[in-house]
Amino acid sequence: MAVYTHVDPADLAALVARYDIGSVLSCKGIAEGVENSNFLLETTAGRFILTLYEKRVSAGDLPFFVDLLDHLANSGSPVPAMIRDRSGVAVQQISGRSACIIQFLSGISLTHPNAAQCEAAGAALGAMHRSLAGYDGARDNSMGHRHWRGVADATGNLDAVRPGLQAIVDAELAFVEAHWPADLPAHVIHADLFPDNVLMLGDRVTGLIDFYFAATDFRAYDLVITHAAWTFSADGSTCDPALAGALMRGYAREITLTEAERAALPTLARGAALRFLLTRAHDWVHTPADALVTRKDPSPFLARLLRYRAADAASLFAAA
Amino acid sequence: MAVYTHVDPADLAALVARYDIGSVLSCKGIAEGVENSNFLLETTAGRFILTLYEKRVSAGDLPFFVDLLDHLANSGSPVPAMIRDRSGVAVQQISGRSACIIQFLSGISLTHPNAAQCEAAGAALGAMHRSLAGYDGARDNSMGHRHWRGVADATGNLDAVRPGLQAIVDAELAFVEAHWPADLPAHVIHADLFPDNVLMLGDRVTGLIDFYFAATDFRAYDLVITHAAWTFSADGSTCDPALAGALMRGYAREITLTEAERAALPTLARGAALRFLLTRAHDWVHTPADALVTRKDPSPFLARLLRYRAADAASLFAAA
Repeated sequence: MAVYTHVDPADLAALVARYDIGSVLSCKGIAEGVENSNFLLETTAGRFILTLYEKRVSAGDLPFFVDLLDHLANSGSPVPAMIRDRSGVAVQQISGRSACIIQFLSGISLTHPNAAQCEAAGAALGAMHRSLAGYDGARDNSMGHRHWRGVADATGNLDAVRPGLQAIVDAELAFVEAHWPADLPAHVIHADLFPDNVLMLGDRVTGLIDFYFAATDFRAYDLVITHAAWTFSADGSTCDPALAGALMRGYAREITLTEAERAALPTLARGAALRFLLTRAHDWVHTPADALVTRKDPSPFLARLLRYRAADAASLFAAA
Repeated sequence: MAVYTHVDPADLAALVARYDIGSVLSCKGIAEGVENSNFLLETTAGRFILTLYEKRVSAGDLPFFVDLLDHLANSGSPVPAMIRDRSGVAVQQISGRSACIIQFLSGISLTHPNAAQCEAAGAALGAMHRSLAGYDGARDNSMGHRHWRGVADATGNLDAVRPGLQAIVDAELAFVEAHWPADLPAHVIHADLFPDNVLMLGDRVTGLIDFYFAATDFRAYDLVITHAAWTFSADGSTCDPALAGALMRGYAREITLTEAERAALPTLARGAALRFLLTRAHDWVHTPADALVTRKDPSPFLARLLRYRAADAASLFAAA
């Protein structure tokens, strides 16, 4: 949850006046998005999301996100388009922050997705990948596998987070460096498609949101991130085969993985679990106890990592 | 800001199904209300606020608030009605909390109200008082003047909040106990009509919200709370005579204060400043540094108290 920056109503009215979206009727800070301040903005023309970009999203990256969402919206993915003002400008300034007014999408983020919903999420991810395969934008993945050792080092002694964690992470970093695939189909991926970032109505996906980790990487890595995010018990110890099979079946409706991708899935999934384990451990150690952001427990991603390391891990990726 | 309690989408759908308000399209936690968890709920029939009542609002008080808002809405005050389900029930249970679905009102809370907006707020308060004079509900004011010494005692040494504060508060408590009026026109009042709790579009009041401090007390005490909340600089040191005059003029359009009320305004205003000084000091001392609630600095209400104590304080209540 996050609303960090106050927006003065007069400044808001001036911002909205740059657009063809009517005048302000309501603007309420919403508890959505970890990195930014988000507001649900209602005008005489409809509803929008106003996002103010806080420190973790670089202003220099915003044109990339605007272009990416334009591309996806134009190709039919249910992503929120960035609205442009009458001069064609999408990235504005308000309250000392870069800001965008973004299309509002209906739908609710699920807490406990069922198999039909996992299948729909898999299909939406696959359809987005079909569109992204033809997208010529690119962005270095600052959360990609080459950066994980640096995140671990910056966290300090991982045994302070959980006894024994340092040795597990050291072994996994060595494994990743030795076994990460050299070459698989790659393009811009979402890289953070947790249930929070998918809006649904019933079993239908109505929105894919929060692209601020989007970067160039293997599409199969995006798939295993989604697998790790959607198909496990809350404590990360158990992968539900019905949910996992449904997710893979939905994805397979849109994308046929190569043999090399299939073979790499357990390795990529260990990497995905390691990535969220490390960034959560880092934030756990470095987030002040009085911060507005709720720190996320890293343990459930250690549990996923151990599950993906098991001898039968490949079976978790069968399309049921 | 406040979203404390997570609502499971399946539980939400079941709750909404009790009402004639269509089906859920969206539900976003909003950063509004200090005491409760609030969500902006969109259904196929429109927009609503879903409020879950956290510890500070007693479930036993909810029927009073429902009845109060019914009375005010029926008499034309722009307050949000509590929606009733098909069985006529307004207070429900979800996620282990009492909860209500409430009418959504357009409008924005002002940061820097101008004179026209202060006048409109004063008139809206006065019109609400006209309606409340005929309302037969009652509720003990647990934040009323008889309780302030208890709040001070529970805070501990006030000099720890600010050096010298203990002596000032002791003197003010003695003053209040000696000079508080015995009998003035009284009925249920809002008791917390800060700009956050007034929705406006331009210079028009579109909503009076957050009645959870409403209780029986002098109507003139409600007026001075609003005076303290609307007409001072952010640091509380200066009352803007143009804003104060406009607020009083707006109120006078609806309510003619008695001579006794007029004479009591500076005393009541010292009490209002003391009330918010004390509750903020209490929360400052007792709110854990890692709480989600932002602690409010008590100092601006000490500054108001000093201003209301000055020899010329009566001039701050002239209708300009």
